[in-house]
Amino acid sequence: MATKKQRLKQKLSKPLNLRKNINKAPGTVTYMGVREGSLTTVSIINYDEEVIEFIAPNSLEEIKESEKSHLTSWIDVAGISDEAYIDNLGKLLGLNPLVLEDAVNTQQRPKIDEYDAYIFGVFNMLYLNEQHEIVSEHLAMVLTEKSVVVFQELKDDVFNGVRERIKNKSGRIRTRGADYLFFALLDAIVDNYFAILEHINDTIESLEDEVYDNPTPEVAHKIQDLKKEVLKIRRKIAPVKEIVSRLVETQSKLISSDTKLFLRDVQDHCIEINESLQIYREMSMSLMEMYMSNMSNKMNEVMKVLTIMASIFIPLTFIVGVYGMNFDHMPELHWDYGYLGVWGIMIAMFVGLLIYFKSKNWL
Amino acid sequence: MATKKQRLKQKLSKPLNLRKNINKAPGTVTYMGVREGSLTTVSIINYDEEVIEFIAPNSLEEIKESEKSHLTSWIDVAGISDEAYIDNLGKLLGLNPLVLEDAVNTQQRPKIDEYDAYIFGVFNMLYLNEQHEIVSEHLAMVLTEKSVVVFQELKDDVFNGVRERIKNKSGRIRTRGADYLFFALLDAIVDNYFAILEHINDTIESLEDEVYDNPTPEVAHKIQDLKKEVLKIRRKIAPVKEIVSRLVETQSKLISSDTKLFLRDVQDHCIEINESLQIYREMSMSLMEMYMSNMSNKMNEVMKVLTIMASIFIPLTFIVGVYGMNFDHMPELHWDYGYLGVWGIMIAMFVGLLIYFKSKNWL
Amino acid sequence: MATKKQRLKQKLSKPLNLRKNINKAPGTVTYMGVREGSLTTVSIINYDEEVIEFIAPNSLEEIKESEKSHLTSWIDVAGISDEAYIDNLGKLLGLNPLVLEDAVNTQQRPKIDEYDAYIFGVFNMLYLNEQHEIVSEHLAMVLTEKSVVVFQELKDDVFNGVRERIKNKSGRIRTRGADYLFFALLDAIVDNYFAILEHINDTIESLEDEVYDNPTPEVAHKIQDLKKEVLKIRRKIAPVKEIVSRLVETQSKLISSDTKLFLRDVQDHCIEINESLQIYREMSMSLMEMYMSNMSNKMNEVMKVLTIMASIFIPLTFIVGVYGMNFDHMPELHWDYGYLGVWGIMIAMFVGLLIYFKSKNWL
Amino acid sequence: MATKKQRLKQKLSKPLNLRKNINKAPGTVTYMGVREGSLTTVSIINYDEEVIEFIAPNSLEEIKESEKSHLTSWIDVAGISDEAYIDNLGKLLGLNPLVLEDAVNTQQRPKIDEYDAYIFGVFNMLYLNEQHEIVSEHLAMVLTEKSVVVFQELKDDVFNGVRERIKNKSGRIRTRGADYLFFALLDAIVDNYFAILEHINDTIESLEDEVYDNPTPEVAHKIQDLKKEVLKIRRKIAPVKEIVSRLVETQSKLISSDTKLFLRDVQDHCIEINESLQIYREMSMSLMEMYMSNMSNKMNEVMKVLTIMASIFIPLTFIVGVYGMNFDHMPELHWDYGYLGVWGIMIAMFVGLLIYFKSKNWL
Amino acid sequence: MATKKQRLKQKLSKPLNLRKNINKAPGTVTYMGVREGSLTTVSIINYDEEVIEFIAPNSLEEIKESEKSHLTSWIDVAGISDEAYIDNLGKLLGLNPLVLEDAVNTQQRPKIDEYDAYIFGVFNMLYLNEQHEIVSEHLAMVLTEKSVVVFQELKDDVFNGVRERIKNKSGRIRTRGADYLFFALLDAIVDNYFAILEHINDTIESLEDEVYDNPTPEVAHKIQDLKKEVLKIRRKIAPVKEIVSRLVETQSKLISSDTKLFLRDVQDHCIEINESLQIYREMSMSLMEMYMSNMSNKMNEVMKVLTIMASIFIPLTFIVGVYGMNFDHMPELHWDYGYLGVWGIMIAMFVGLLIYFKSKNWL
Repeated sequence: MATKKQRLKQKLSKPLNLRKNINKAPGTVTYMGVREGSLTTVSIINYDEEVIEFIAPNSLEEIKESEKSHLTSWIDVAGISDEAYIDNLGKLLGLNPLVLEDAVNTQQRPKIDEYDAYIFGVFNMLYLNEQHEIVSEHLAMVLTEKSVVVFQELKDDVFNGVRERIKNKSGRIRTRGADYLFFALLDAIVDNYFAILEHINDTIESLEDEVYDNPTPEVAHKIQDLKKEVLKIRRKIAPVKEIVSRLVETQSKLISSDTKLFLRDVQDHCIEINESLQIYREMSMSLMEMYMSNMSNKMNEVMKVLTIMASIFIPLTFIVGVYGMNFDHMPELHWDYGYLGVWGIMIAMFVGLLIYFKSKNWL
Repeated sequence: MATKKQRLKQKLSKPLNLRKNINKAPGTVTYMGVREGSLTTVSIINYDEEVIEFIAPNSLEEIKESEKSHLTSWIDVAGISDEAYIDNLGKLLGLNPLVLEDAVNTQQRPKIDEYDAYIFGVFNMLYLNEQHEIVSEHLAMVLTEKSVVVFQELKDDVFNGVRERIKNKSGRIRTRGADYLFFALLDAIVDNYFAILEHINDTIESLEDEVYDNPTPEVAHKIQDLKKEVLKIRRKIAPVKEIVSRLVETQSKLISSDTKLFLRDVQDHCIEINESLQIYREMSMSLMEMYMSNMSNKMNEVMKVLTIMASIFIPLTFIVGVYGMNFDHMPELHWDYGYLGVWGIMIAMFVGLLIYFKSKNWL
Repeated sequence: MATKKQRLKQKLSKPLNLRKNINKAPGTVTYMGVREGSLTTVSIINYDEEVIEFIAPNSLEEIKESEKSHLTSWIDVAGISDEAYIDNLGKLLGLNPLVLEDAVNTQQRPKIDEYDAYIFGVFNMLYLNEQHEIVSEHLAMVLTEKSVVVFQELKDDVFNGVRERIKNKSGRIRTRGADYLFFALLDAIVDNYFAILEHINDTIESLEDEVYDNPTPEVAHKIQDLKKEVLKIRRKIAPVKEIVSRLVETQSKLISSDTKLFLRDVQDHCIEINESLQIYREMSMSLMEMYMSNMSNKMNEVMKVLTIMASIFIPLTFIVGVYGMNFDHMPELHWDYGYLGVWGIMIAMFVGLLIYFKSKNWL
Repeated sequence: MATKKQRLKQKLSKPLNLRKNINKAPGTVTYMGVREGSLTTVSIINYDEEVIEFIAPNSLEEIKESEKSHLTSWIDVAGISDEAYIDNLGKLLGLNPLVLEDAVNTQQRPKIDEYDAYIFGVFNMLYLNEQHEIVSEHLAMVLTEKSVVVFQELKDDVFNGVRERIKNKSGRIRTRGADYLFFALLDAIVDNYFAILEHINDTIESLEDEVYDNPTPEVAHKIQDLKKEVLKIRRKIAPVKEIVSRLVETQSKLISSDTKLFLRDVQDHCIEINESLQIYREMSMSLMEMYMSNMSNKMNEVMKVLTIMASIFIPLTFIVGVYGMNFDHMPELHWDYGYLGVWGIMIAMFVGLLIYFKSKNWL
Repeated sequence: MATKKQRLKQKLSKPLNLRKNINKAPGTVTYMGVREGSLTTVSIINYDEEVIEFIAPNSLEEIKESEKSHLTSWIDVAGISDEAYIDNLGKLLGLNPLVLEDAVNTQQRPKIDEYDAYIFGVFNMLYLNEQHEIVSEHLAMVLTEKSVVVFQELKDDVFNGVRERIKNKSGRIRTRGADYLFFALLDAIVDNYFAILEHINDTIESLEDEVYDNPTPEVAHKIQDLKKEVLKIRRKIAPVKEIVSRLVETQSKLISSDTKLFLRDVQDHCIEINESLQIYREMSMSLMEMYMSNMSNKMNEVMKVLTIMASIFIPLTFIVGVYGMNFDHMPELHWDYGYLGVWGIMIAMFVGLLIYFKSKNWL
């Protein structure tokens, strides 16, 4: 239990109590995550229908050189804790300092900003790691005319499928421009949200079984943790729907109407995800209700046992008490069948009470 | 109980934890349902006011040949697990690959997409099977100028009434075009939602009786299952309202203003269905509330029995205990009417307590 | 209790589980109510400022003949189960078959449809019958240039006040056209909703008293029934607000701007009714809350009695038990004041515990 | 308690079960309040920057005569039960009969109606009387070009501050027209709502203390009464916000843009009042929650006392019972230290159980 | 507990029961806070890219003189209880009396008003003082073409960071005009809201632990206090979001499009803050739910102990009672192993009941 709680706190990285870089001037590039110590790694894929190049530049100059006007570029920047490097890279790519600030601010809420020369978006990549824990990774993407620049916290990402499709020469992705690549990456992010939903669904189902079978207080805590988890995930996922809607309706020339058709599909998925999260919320509230009802049911059972035991034996104890009295004149004590008669009365009472409780469905 | 739960899970086909075809390129035609093994069967009805033809084409060529420009065509494709066949059929009919993907994706949320040459809609057909279980079947419809193409998971459907009306030469449907057929099919789908509502209503009424008569924990579980069922059905039905509204207001030339008048009727039904689902939701919450109140009422009753028994006999037991003491000097023990006197006191106490509890309305 | 429940079900005529006329072609005139066996009765009032005629036509021809272009006509059709007759009447009056279908469909949700030549509205007339039960009666009204046609299920209605005002030669209604008559009838319907509200208010107040005085489980059931009743009535009344708003803003020439001023008043009433229903809903939830709190209060009282009785007499019983032991060496038994001393101790304990419970406010 | 309830019902004058003047023609001037028997009193204040006149006209003619085109008039009509008088006054002032109907209908919901020549508004004046009870008084105001006509139920009102400011020759109100007077009166009404809010706030705080200190069932009833009171007050106050917004945005020439600036301030206050009412609603729900939690806490305490007493003395009673048995062969009875030993065992058990309960934090 | 409650009331300064300055004419400058006795202190910072001046004017004349058209001015007015001074200052600066009224009204809800020559905003500065209590301070800001005038209740504020950045000659703030200064101050206010959120978050986490570990009634009270605190803070913070949105979209020439880009960032933060407050609200409701569930769990435990003790010893007491009876003929009493046999039976019963309770998971 405690470990689960612990894990959640670490993995969702305290999304609610960020303290912004107070007293810094706006536009200051400040990495807000836990410093990973790892260096920033840049990897570039240039491609068109015919050609594909994989470049691992060692310096900003090499990045500069790798640009080729006729190819679509995917510039992947993994590790964003080296602020100076990012700052220089931003200048090289001609990005606004406010954009860079948001790109490395791991606490930034998902958003989309349209500039004349590029579109800038911030997302949360949510995926399950090997320990089946939900990992949230900050991700920023810049779509320019010929390239997509991706800033991600860690090297792990959800883009392997896209990479495979780029390598496959006959794939549709090779025939299209940077906007389609942007869509493909966004699609991959949203697709992974479904895996998260499934994980939540499994948790709900297993909690449902626990509530039915063994409603211990731990289960109540788990339900509350689940509710909190759903709240936090919704907070990371919900803004994406609006972002995609804005992309679908954008006037920007960077996104072709063809690609918008595909984005509409992503929009559908976002609606679906939001609906599911809403349903999970209602389900977790139902779980708690169910838990409370099971609790009070258990209480009822305990009370019944007490009532039956006490109601049967307290009167009997009274009767035997009567004949334990030491009065001089107690004729029953001297009857031949007095003792047997008392037993008879007591057994009759015992049976009578059993029948009474049976009739009340308490047995 | 468990079987009911089991059934629900199977029939509503895990609507909440779909894992999308991650890492496939968008537009890939992938059947998402449980493979039925059955082949795809196509059946065509061509008709106008005078003529009616029933065709069961054995190949794509025959489908091609069956097209006659002066007749309205209803092309019914039952069984959508054969992806290659569907892919070819789609090319034959000139459909966008994204449309085909949605047509066979049994997890697709209800939606409507307007293209220049056709209107594409996805729905869920909900009906009760012989075992009075709710069955959800994915259904896609394409309305072109002269035909309606229906993609459905299984051969079973809710369209027999429409077929009868087409066979009837004097029916209005024979005098109108493909858009009216599209409306008639949609109307049949929505009409069946009412049967589902009635089924839910019956379930609520029977649960109501159970809550009143015998509020066992099983009843609470059934109520929670009901709430979940309503949530899931709402998810499948609710989007239809918006879809029909968009059809009523569409600019597309494929739907005549005459047919829009009829669609307005369907719109009315959709509003009604959504209101009913909302009311069912509130009713199921009331049921749970009622259950909890009955539970705590039962607890009260148990406690009253315990309290009455204990409050009457514990003091009496004390009294007989007094005269069971072995003190040398206990004058009462030697009185002639001591024993009778004690009985008198005890009966008085007994009656007094009965009156007291009676006055409290506990008896 | 059960009878109340029974009554409700009958009177509100299962508003939630209508099964629409599945598999019938749209536009088929099908009466959806319980067949009354009664014939359709038509009565006509023709009037202007000077003249007033009461006509009870025996055939469709007589209806036709009664039309006089210079008089305003109120054609009242009571009893709508004779579908053939209604169908012919509709043709005579030039009404769309879809209108007729809705006119006799007693399950139709309140709505307004504007056509070029007439405005068609469906409402629910709610009134209290002699047994103070809420009766819901389906009603359809058609406003043409010179006449209002009213279709109602039963002969009983809420229009007697309007009839009186028409008979009164100096009344404003005689100086105005069909649209004012339409307004007057609608106003009469909405006015009766206030009587229903008052009835609900009385029910809430009497339940409030019951919850305060004697919160038996029956009261909880009554509260739940009330909640359901409010839900169902809201369903019948709520759409009227929107309908009247549309009439106020209509472009149709059938309603003069003068009459719209009066309709604005009806609109005000509708807003008020909806607010009241909302408040009744919150009040019935408060009632249930209050009931639960009273229940748990009663439980507390029961527990206190048990605790006081047990806490006082169990220790005393222990003490007398001690001196009922048969040990050879129990010096106290042989003391002269042993017996008295024990009584002294016991009385002290008794008093002490009473003081303790008093201090806890349990007595 | 009962008296409080009684009072509330009287003072808020059954706002929820008004039965409208059914079967009367619309536009009939019908006083809906409790007849006060008092005559209608009219008092007029005419003023401009230089002049101020106080007129108490005895007849309609005198009202007519008092009109002077160069002065701003405040015509105050107190007592609206004399329908004929009001009817004539309305004709004199040129008011629409529908306006007069609303002016004397004490059940009328707050509203604003704009006519060409005047603006008509209905409000509820809420104030605390000497017994610190909330009094609701119906009030109607008509703003014409040069005058404000106020219809109020009773002579008491909240306008004394405004009267003082008018008397003060240097006040801003003297330099401005009728629209500013209208604003000043509205401002006085809204300002008094703050006093009502403060009263509610005080009630909540005192209930809070009662819930903390002594959660008797009466407190629960008071909380429910409070909830109902807040509901009813919200119903009277909430529409004012919208009314003021419409005044701020009105196109009517009767209100100058200068005065609108002041009305914007009133608008701010209305927003604040609505927010506060919303917060009070949540607070009263929290109160009930707190009450329930305190109740169940008390129950816990009662149960603990019972459990401790019973758990300690029932086993001890068993032990003494053992040595009260009359078997021939009970060696312990004849031991020299048997009696002392039993005491030892019992004291040990007693202490052990005390320690156990202590460890559970039950003592 | 009580102290906490006390503190809250003082610090959040009774935000809900303000009694407005009833009967004062609108536009009267009336300080609504608790009089601090402190004088009004004005301090001015004039700066441009090259120059920076700090001025502490002793009179209104010196303020007048300090104005220099080529410099951006930050005029900070700390202490607003001296109404006459503020009134004169307002005249000097050319401000509308209504603006001044709002500037010193510490109860004023956050708002923004645009005038031709200036933009006027009211905010609440929330910060934690040394005792980690939330302090709310009323703040008004006026943006003119070349200056920002700040009215604040106390000398303490959240603007030290901004002052530092102004002192730093190379900072961006020095190169920009008054609108950027306005943004910077607003940004500092909003940034401090995050500190408040973090404080609430910490409170929730510590309450969570208390609920898990030791759910005493005090914890319930603390949760209710938290809920109230969140309600009150939301009331102070929520309007800011709308205010910033209006600034972002303003047509006013006072705010450059460049600065709007920065304001969009503040808008993002406001959205985030509102979302967090919403989540805190849900979390505090979950806390209460958890508390109730833990309470009823504890009750269950208490009941189990009682039931186990009573169920075991009451039957045993009955048995020893039997052999305490004084019948002449009780053969068992004379058996050699009678006493031992009874012990055997009793131990068997004891063990049997233990096993039974174990099987029910009560031990």
